[in-house]
Amino acid sequence: MRRAADGLAIRLGELVERFGGQLAGDPGIEVAAIAPLERAGAFDISFLSNSKLRDLAARSQAAALVLAPADETEVAASYGGARIVSANPYAWFARAAQYFVALRTPPLEPGVHPTAAIHPSARIDASAHIGAHVTIEAGAIVKAGAVIDAGCYIGREAVVGEDTHFFANVSFHAGCIIGARGIVHSGAVIGGDGFGFAVDGGSYIKIPQTGRVVIGNDVDIGANTTVDRGALDDTVIEDGVKLDNLIQIGHNCRIGAHTAMAGCVGVAGSATIGKHCTFGGAAMINGHIEIADNVHVTAATMVPNSLTEPGRYTGYFPVARNAEWERNAVLVRNLSTMREKVRALEKAVRTLINGK
Amino acid sequence: MRRAADGLAIRLGELVERFGGQLAGDPGIEVAAIAPLERAGAFDISFLSNSKLRDLAARSQAAALVLAPADETEVAASYGGARIVSANPYAWFARAAQYFVALRTPPLEPGVHPTAAIHPSARIDASAHIGAHVTIEAGAIVKAGAVIDAGCYIGREAVVGEDTHFFANVSFHAGCIIGARGIVHSGAVIGGDGFGFAVDGGSYIKIPQTGRVVIGNDVDIGANTTVDRGALDDTVIEDGVKLDNLIQIGHNCRIGAHTAMAGCVGVAGSATIGKHCTFGGAAMINGHIEIADNVHVTAATMVPNSLTEPGRYTGYFPVARNAEWERNAVLVRNLSTMREKVRALEKAVRTLINGK
Amino acid sequence: MRRAADGLAIRLGELVERFGGQLAGDPGIEVAAIAPLERAGAFDISFLSNSKLRDLAARSQAAALVLAPADETEVAASYGGARIVSANPYAWFARAAQYFVALRTPPLEPGVHPTAAIHPSARIDASAHIGAHVTIEAGAIVKAGAVIDAGCYIGREAVVGEDTHFFANVSFHAGCIIGARGIVHSGAVIGGDGFGFAVDGGSYIKIPQTGRVVIGNDVDIGANTTVDRGALDDTVIEDGVKLDNLIQIGHNCRIGAHTAMAGCVGVAGSATIGKHCTFGGAAMINGHIEIADNVHVTAATMVPNSLTEPGRYTGYFPVARNAEWERNAVLVRNLSTMREKVRALEKAVRTLINGK
Repeated sequence: MRRAADGLAIRLGELVERFGGQLAGDPGIEVAAIAPLERAGAFDISFLSNSKLRDLAARSQAAALVLAPADETEVAASYGGARIVSANPYAWFARAAQYFVALRTPPLEPGVHPTAAIHPSARIDASAHIGAHVTIEAGAIVKAGAVIDAGCYIGREAVVGEDTHFFANVSFHAGCIIGARGIVHSGAVIGGDGFGFAVDGGSYIKIPQTGRVVIGNDVDIGANTTVDRGALDDTVIEDGVKLDNLIQIGHNCRIGAHTAMAGCVGVAGSATIGKHCTFGGAAMINGHIEIADNVHVTAATMVPNSLTEPGRYTGYFPVARNAEWERNAVLVRNLSTMREKVRALEKAVRTLINGK
Repeated sequence: MRRAADGLAIRLGELVERFGGQLAGDPGIEVAAIAPLERAGAFDISFLSNSKLRDLAARSQAAALVLAPADETEVAASYGGARIVSANPYAWFARAAQYFVALRTPPLEPGVHPTAAIHPSARIDASAHIGAHVTIEAGAIVKAGAVIDAGCYIGREAVVGEDTHFFANVSFHAGCIIGARGIVHSGAVIGGDGFGFAVDGGSYIKIPQTGRVVIGNDVDIGANTTVDRGALDDTVIEDGVKLDNLIQIGHNCRIGAHTAMAGCVGVAGSATIGKHCTFGGAAMINGHIEIADNVHVTAATMVPNSLTEPGRYTGYFPVARNAEWERNAVLVRNLSTMREKVRALEKAVRTLINGK
Repeated sequence: MRRAADGLAIRLGELVERFGGQLAGDPGIEVAAIAPLERAGAFDISFLSNSKLRDLAARSQAAALVLAPADETEVAASYGGARIVSANPYAWFARAAQYFVALRTPPLEPGVHPTAAIHPSARIDASAHIGAHVTIEAGAIVKAGAVIDAGCYIGREAVVGEDTHFFANVSFHAGCIIGARGIVHSGAVIGGDGFGFAVDGGSYIKIPQTGRVVIGNDVDIGANTTVDRGALDDTVIEDGVKLDNLIQIGHNCRIGAHTAMAGCVGVAGSATIGKHCTFGGAAMINGHIEIADNVHVTAATMVPNSLTEPGRYTGYFPVARNAEWERNAVLVRNLSTMREKVRALEKAVRTLINGK
């Protein structure tokens, strides 16, 4: 039987046990990595997520192929390797890829780096890993399997859930909570003060921000993303939310479960966003509005009012050669003049018609 | 007399002495917290900032209520607690809330954490608090009552004013100055190099950025906001400016006193912005322009030229269902065609009218 | 001969040897700094980058003036100091300014700060400077002359090239590479995970991001800018690229050599951007598109599709007084109605004309 050079391989039979799918082929075949169709070799498994690539799949040198039922008959006719049929080959690929990465990632030793500054009243699970130069304040809790990389800050009485991973230089402030299996990327700031002021005689009086940020399970937060603590009540990020880099979430927002936002999105304070929504890069959401479940906002779109119906929404000025844009921008500025001309024409034409 | 459980309470008489207002009721009543109208109880003070909530106020269980003169008569008729009449109940609330938060916040011990790396020539006031893993370079000054949280960096000869608070992981670079009572949130970078280059043969030659960032008193800077140092002269943030998260201020900008910017705003280099302006989230301000005092720019608006008159300015494409937006985007792109058609119609109609 | 007070001066002859140009005047004259035309004195050199300032140059007290050939005759007639004629006075100024800054900057001592946490298998060149609280993981390489300021994180097997400077609190993740003479500003995050998920039953399955970020020589990366690692292949930033602050570069992007981006730009995943392009602040580039060489995108412009021809492209809604914008926004929303009216008019006018 073929064996991967470093012995870190898995039998197809075991993959199917772990990740599902129907196997057509020898369950004893071993694979050691995932590779794209055109580069896969004798110890690789590959996947067909798009029927347009059937020809490429047919010629692939992969030991095995993950594919959808609809592609099975045609691929089986030409491709000689093993096949795993799955209703969702892309999700199967994602899970298997996680497995292969874990197989080759050296395990982190549990324990606290000697340079870390941990308050005696903080409770760090013995299985957690705390990196160099980490600061953990009084009463904070870091649960089993959590990984806190170098330079992170965890404030008073904050809670980090099981198997959650903070990359280097995260700031996670007092009283904030994140659930299990979360990932917070470098430079993210969770629980900074919300932007709340009273105005008095032309200057601003700060309103203390005493709420928390409460984050569910399986939430990813991107690099340098900021989530502000609530003013009085909490800011809430529900389970399964995925936030990309450089996103701003204002105080007292609620982001519904399994909603995803691409980079540079801004959500102003007290916005309530539904579940299973998606936001393209740099979409901007006004404060104090509600977005229904299953709303999809295109990149670079400003949403000033509530969106109560699911669907796709867009609003950006179409790009053009600069000279053409300048012409159109002037015309947009003068649209009321054009409308007046059209109205005058309608009146003149009515007169001409009626005058006959 | 009623007393709060933990004894951390204040008499209404003392509150009025501190924060002003006319008291109608027993000055000896003690309150221990601020709470919203509908949740306030026997040891809480609440406030009415909006006359629409008069009915709620009438039924509130709060021990005392702060309200405006215009609401006094109607509320007095139905509400049984004490009343404090203030011309600006929201500002009164903000100041009192700060007081109540301070009452329950454990005081920070002054001193330098043993893990901090402080250059011997830096001058740290004995009353300042320096957290774990802080780095302070040669010649820097940290004044009385300042709080520098864990992981902050303060560059050579930088100056941090009295009672200014840096949250964890701020980078405050060489020579920069911030005044008294400022707040800089985590991840903010003050005094990074401005973006200045000469072009030579298609590649960029860096222009050294030798100016500073000079920040006044009572300035708040949000998480992960960046303010670049000047090229030769300084970048200036005047007193009372409030910057939210993820804002970019380019080199040699001047932001006028008591101007506020919401998250994700960008200001390009050498822009001069007036006093008492407001900028909605993700507003973008071009470089080398001037914005007058009391200008208010709506979120997601690009400002390419100077605005010399106060007022509200807006410019973003209205959001719509994607299909509708596509139709309108095509029509915007073809506005010159529509204008030509209108002109042709005008000519034809003139001919028809004159031809009769 | 005149001498600068601190003796840190350079003769004009040596400046011309270093930075080129034709000297008209005494090569023995010493200058100690660069100053603007109107402020320059007897130990300063100044420069004329814009012919409109010829009058100012004529009256300048600078010891010497750098100017273009086109300005030479006119300035020589009135200005009494030495002149250095250069085809590109601004680039000459940039290089000389770097020299003068270096002259007065105290040299950093090479070596590793005692608080830094360096893995024994990391290779740090003896000439590199590693600041306080830095963390460097296993197998990382820091080459000759590199400067890693306080609080930086360098991941496993990452490589930092010769004379590259990381300002405080940079996160540079596992396996990423940056070439020589780079500058990475505070808070930048290089090599965070790309934003890639498979969807299964309405929730997201993370796709491991196993590519790297590979950065060429002479690249500047601004404060709090984020560059994600590739999903499988690498994210690539070519030589001479200049990125300002708060920019987001998605996974698997390629940014062509000598392209510059202003603050707050976002580039979604797998975009390929040409050489010598420029992007104004907050320009947004869609994923999976291609931008040709020498494309210039105006600030606040969304680019949804590939741009295959060089030139300037723009697309933002023109700003106006809020009331005027509201009128125009309504008209934009109803452009199809206006088009229908124009069509109806065209038909009516044709009937009127033909009916005669």
